[in-house]
Amino acid sequence: MKISIAQINYHIGNFEGNFNHMKEAVEQAKEAGADIVCFSELATCGYPPRDFLEFEDFIRLSEETIAKLTALTDDIAIVVGAPTRNPVPEGKDLYNSAYFLYENEIKYIQHKALLPTYDIFDEYRYFEPASAFGVVEFKGKKIALTVCEDIWNIANENPLYTISPLDEMSKYNPDFIINTSASPFSYKQADERKNIIRANVARYNIPMFYINHVGAQTEIIFDGGSVVISPDGKIYEELPYFKEAFKTYDLDQVMQGGKNNEQSVSKIEKIHDALVLGIKDYFGKLGFRKAILGLSGGIDSAVTAVLAQRALGSENVRVLLMPSQFSSDHSVNDARQLAENLGIQYDIVEIKDLYSAFMQKLDPMFAGLDFNVTEENIQARSRGVLLMAMSNKFGNILLNTSNKSEMAVGYGTLYGDLAGGISVIGDIYKMEVYALAEFMNKEGVVIPTNTITKPPSAELRPDQKDSDSLPDYEILDTILYQYIEQRKGPKEIIEMGYDAALVARILRLVNISEFKRYQTAPVLRVSTKAFGVGRRMPIVGKYLN
Amino acid sequence: MKISIAQINYHIGNFEGNFNHMKEAVEQAKEAGADIVCFSELATCGYPPRDFLEFEDFIRLSEETIAKLTALTDDIAIVVGAPTRNPVPEGKDLYNSAYFLYENEIKYIQHKALLPTYDIFDEYRYFEPASAFGVVEFKGKKIALTVCEDIWNIANENPLYTISPLDEMSKYNPDFIINTSASPFSYKQADERKNIIRANVARYNIPMFYINHVGAQTEIIFDGGSVVISPDGKIYEELPYFKEAFKTYDLDQVMQGGKNNEQSVSKIEKIHDALVLGIKDYFGKLGFRKAILGLSGGIDSAVTAVLAQRALGSENVRVLLMPSQFSSDHSVNDARQLAENLGIQYDIVEIKDLYSAFMQKLDPMFAGLDFNVTEENIQARSRGVLLMAMSNKFGNILLNTSNKSEMAVGYGTLYGDLAGGISVIGDIYKMEVYALAEFMNKEGVVIPTNTITKPPSAELRPDQKDSDSLPDYEILDTILYQYIEQRKGPKEIIEMGYDAALVARILRLVNISEFKRYQTAPVLRVSTKAFGVGRRMPIVGKYLN
Repeated sequence: MKISIAQINYHIGNFEGNFNHMKEAVEQAKEAGADIVCFSELATCGYPPRDFLEFEDFIRLSEETIAKLTALTDDIAIVVGAPTRNPVPEGKDLYNSAYFLYENEIKYIQHKALLPTYDIFDEYRYFEPASAFGVVEFKGKKIALTVCEDIWNIANENPLYTISPLDEMSKYNPDFIINTSASPFSYKQADERKNIIRANVARYNIPMFYINHVGAQTEIIFDGGSVVISPDGKIYEELPYFKEAFKTYDLDQVMQGGKNNEQSVSKIEKIHDALVLGIKDYFGKLGFRKAILGLSGGIDSAVTAVLAQRALGSENVRVLLMPSQFSSDHSVNDARQLAENLGIQYDIVEIKDLYSAFMQKLDPMFAGLDFNVTEENIQARSRGVLLMAMSNKFGNILLNTSNKSEMAVGYGTLYGDLAGGISVIGDIYKMEVYALAEFMNKEGVVIPTNTITKPPSAELRPDQKDSDSLPDYEILDTILYQYIEQRKGPKEIIEMGYDAALVARILRLVNISEFKRYQTAPVLRVSTKAFGVGRRMPIVGKYLN
Repeated sequence: MKISIAQINYHIGNFEGNFNHMKEAVEQAKEAGADIVCFSELATCGYPPRDFLEFEDFIRLSEETIAKLTALTDDIAIVVGAPTRNPVPEGKDLYNSAYFLYENEIKYIQHKALLPTYDIFDEYRYFEPASAFGVVEFKGKKIALTVCEDIWNIANENPLYTISPLDEMSKYNPDFIINTSASPFSYKQADERKNIIRANVARYNIPMFYINHVGAQTEIIFDGGSVVISPDGKIYEELPYFKEAFKTYDLDQVMQGGKNNEQSVSKIEKIHDALVLGIKDYFGKLGFRKAILGLSGGIDSAVTAVLAQRALGSENVRVLLMPSQFSSDHSVNDARQLAENLGIQYDIVEIKDLYSAFMQKLDPMFAGLDFNVTEENIQARSRGVLLMAMSNKFGNILLNTSNKSEMAVGYGTLYGDLAGGISVIGDIYKMEVYALAEFMNKEGVVIPTNTITKPPSAELRPDQKDSDSLPDYEILDTILYQYIEQRKGPKEIIEMGYDAALVARILRLVNISEFKRYQTAPVLRVSTKAFGVGRRMPIVGKYLN
C-alpha cells in the first residue's frame, strides 16, 4: 500500500484555492501510484477559521469542497480534515473531523475528541468533542484516523484531558495511524511534536503518518515538518519546515523502518525562517506585495528590514529614514548602510519641522510646561503619519518593528512606532533580536556592526539610552520570560534571586501596558506565549499594578 | 429567614477593594438582621478575570479573600462566587464555584456546570464543568446554589448543553434557588434574563434570588438588575440597572408573592445609561478622571461628548475643534455650540498648516500623484497626533468616536479618528446614534439641531458626503445587522430583498476591514454582537472578499 502526504499552505476561507491545491496533490498521488493521499486538519477551509465557522454559508462551502474531493476518489482514497455539522441539537453545532473519501463516497468520518481551548486555541467555542471512535477498513488494512490534539493524550497522562482516542481505537487493532494536524509553530514545538508522535508509536507499535499544515495565517505560523514514523520508533522521514512538500511512501518499507531522517535545525534558524514565512504569507494572502518601514539605525528596525527583504525581495521593500534633532549622525549612516547592503529603496525625511509645526499648534495649550514624554511621542507619531502616508499612497504595508521586551513594558508610542499592519519581531525578546542579527550576519555583514554594538536608544530626547529607564536587557528579558511564558507570579520570580522592587516594577509595567498591546498589530508567534490572541488580559484589571 | 442581596461593582484583580466592598455589605446585612448575604459570580476576583486565572498567585489571592470572608460568618452566612482549584490532575485546573460560608467555615461549594464558551465568553478555557450537584442545608431550609449560566438550560432544552443542573438539584427538594451571576448587558439581555428566571421558577415552583454584577470591566458592561422572584412567577423585586444596590428580603414574604415590581426602561435609555457607566468605570478603574476628544460638529463626536460629560462631569471633559481647509463653517459653529451647551473646555486648532507640513515633506515622493485617500488620512492622523499630545500632556484619556456602521465597513482612519483608549459608540449603528441624540435632546436641546439634521460627512475632501461612498444608513445598518448580529450569509440577506451587488460589496468591506478593527480600542458592548473580543475573525481570510 502506498500513502502520499501533502504538506500544503492553505488559506482560510479560500475554498476554491484550497481545493485546487489539493486537487493537484491528488493528481500527483495518482501518478505516484498511491492508494491514499492525506491532507491536514480543516484543510477545506484553512485553520483557524475562527468565527467564520458560525456562518451557515461557510460550512456549506466546506461541504461543497468535500463533495468535489469525493468526486476525485474513484481509484484513490483521500484523508482530509473538515468541519461536520452536529446532527443533534444538543451540544455545539459542529465537529472538527477527519474524512475518509473513497469510491466517490464518504466512507468514514472520525470526529476530534480533544479540543484545545487554551493559548491561541478556541476549539470548544465551535466544536463538540467526539464520543465515538472506530477505524477505517481499507484494502485489508485498518486505519486509525486522528485529528491533531487527539494523539496528545498518551495513556491518558495529559492532565488536560480525560479520554485517550487512540486507546479507544486500539481496541480495533489498527495497522497504522494517520493524523491530520494544524500544529502551530513555536521554537519548541517540532521537538515536542516528535516526542509525542514517538511515544504514540511506542505505545501502539504501529507506524504513524502525521500531516501538518504549513504556512502562516496572520500571526499563527504552521511550520510543516510532517512526519512518518516506523514501528521501530525512528523517524522514517520528516518533511521540510516552512515550505510545501509532497511525498509518497510504501507502507511495507515504513513498517521495516531502519531509517532515521530527522531534521536538525537550530532554534534561531527556525525563528528566522518562521518570521520570513510569516511576512511572506501575510502579504501574499492579503494580496499585497510591498512593504514599508522606518529604519532608525537601531537593531530592531534593521532585523525587521532584513526579514522583510528576505520574504518579499529587495524590490518590494522600501524604507524611510526619519532623523529628528535628537538623532545621532551614526543613526542615519547605519540605516543608510543597511539599506544599501539590502539593495532596498530608501528616502530620508527629516522630521524636525513636523515636530515644530505640532509644537507651534500646541503652544497655546502647552505654554510653560516642560518637555516630557508628550514631545517624545510627537516625534514617534509624526514618523507614523509619514509611513502610513507612504503606505496609503503606494500600497506598501507598514511593518511594525517593536520587539517583545519593549512591547511588554510599554516602551513604545501608540500610533507611532507601535503602528503597522503586522508586528514582525513582537514575539522576540531584545536579546533574541541580537541573536537574530548575528545569525543574519553569519555569511557576511548585512546589518552594520555599529547597529549591533551601540547601546540601544529611542533617540527621542538628548543623549537618551534604553538603560536610562530599563534594567539591562539580560535581566529584563529573564524576568519577562518568567512572567509571560512561564506564568510565574512575583513571589516565585523574586525567589529566583531577583530584586523585589525591580520585579514589582516590571510586572506592573507589563500589566499597565495592556491598553497599548490591545491596539497593536497581530504579532508573528514564535514562542509558547506571544502577545495577542493567545494571551488575554483585562485592561482595567488591578492586579500587580 | 432573611436574605440580603448585594449588587456590587467589582474590579478585576482588586482583591482588597472587592473584599472591603463585600465586608461593608456583610455589616449592612447583619444590621438588617439577615441570615444570608449573597454576592455575585467570581466576586473575589471580579469577572471576567481572563488569563489572570492562569497565575497561581492570583488564585492564592482569591483564596485569601474567601478566608477573610469566612472569618465574618460567625452569625451570618455568605454566598459568594470564586474560583476553586480542581484537586485532580485530569481536566482544567479550576472550577467556577459558588461558596456557602457559615460559622467560620466553608460549608459547601457548588461548581458551575454550564460554561459559556461563545461570543465574549471563554469559560472552558479555564474551568472544568461540575459533575456533582447537591443542596445546602441551612436553618431548616435547603438551598440550590447555582452559578449564572447554570439556570439557562431549563428542562435541558438549551441546545448548547446536555445537562440541567437544577434538574439534578431538584432531586433534593430545595426550598429556594440562589444564583450568583455576572450576566453582561446587551439591550436585549434584561428581558431574556427575566424570562429565563421566570421559566425556572415556574418549573421548580420555588423562589429565586438572582444576584448580578453591576459595573463595567473595560468593554463588558454588567447592568445589575438583580431579581427576586416569588413562586407565583412574579417579579417580587428587581434592583436598579447600572448602579449598586443592597436589599434584604424576608423569605416568607417572598414565598407569598403577589408583588410585581419589574422595571420598565426603554431600549435607548438602557443603551444610554450603559454607555455612561462604561465610560465612568473605564476611567475610574484605571485611575483616571479626565477625557479628551475631537469635536467635528458631526453627530458621532457630539453624542460621545454628551456621554462623556454625563459620565465624568463637565470639568473633566475637554475637546479640540480641529477644522481643516475642507471643514464647513457650520462644523466649527455646531461644535462650539455643543461645547458651550455642555460647559466643557474647548480649544480650536486649525490643522491646515500641519497638513501642508506633511505634504511638503512627502513632496519628493508624491510629486505628480493625485489627491486620494492618503491626503484624507493625513488630516485625520494630524488630528490624532494633536489629541494624543493633549492626552499625554494632561492625562486626559482620548475617547474614540467611531460608530458601528463606519467601523464595520472600514470607513475610518487607523491612528487617526480610530484612535482612542475606549470606543464609546463603536457598538452603535449610525441610525441608533441619531436615536441617542434625540433621546439626549428630549428635555431640552443639548446637541445642536443642525448637527442632527445635516447630511453626515467626514469633511476630508471638498463637498464630501458619507452618501458619496456608502448607501443610505437605513439600508447599510440593516444589512450590517443581518451579517454581524444575525450571522446571515450573503445568500440569505439577498433573499430578504436587498440588491445582490450591494450586499456583496458591504460584506466584502466588512471582511477586508478586520485589520483596522484589530487595532481599534475596546468597544463598549451594548448589542448581542459587538466588535472586539466577542467577534473573532481571521485577518488574512479570503471569504466574501
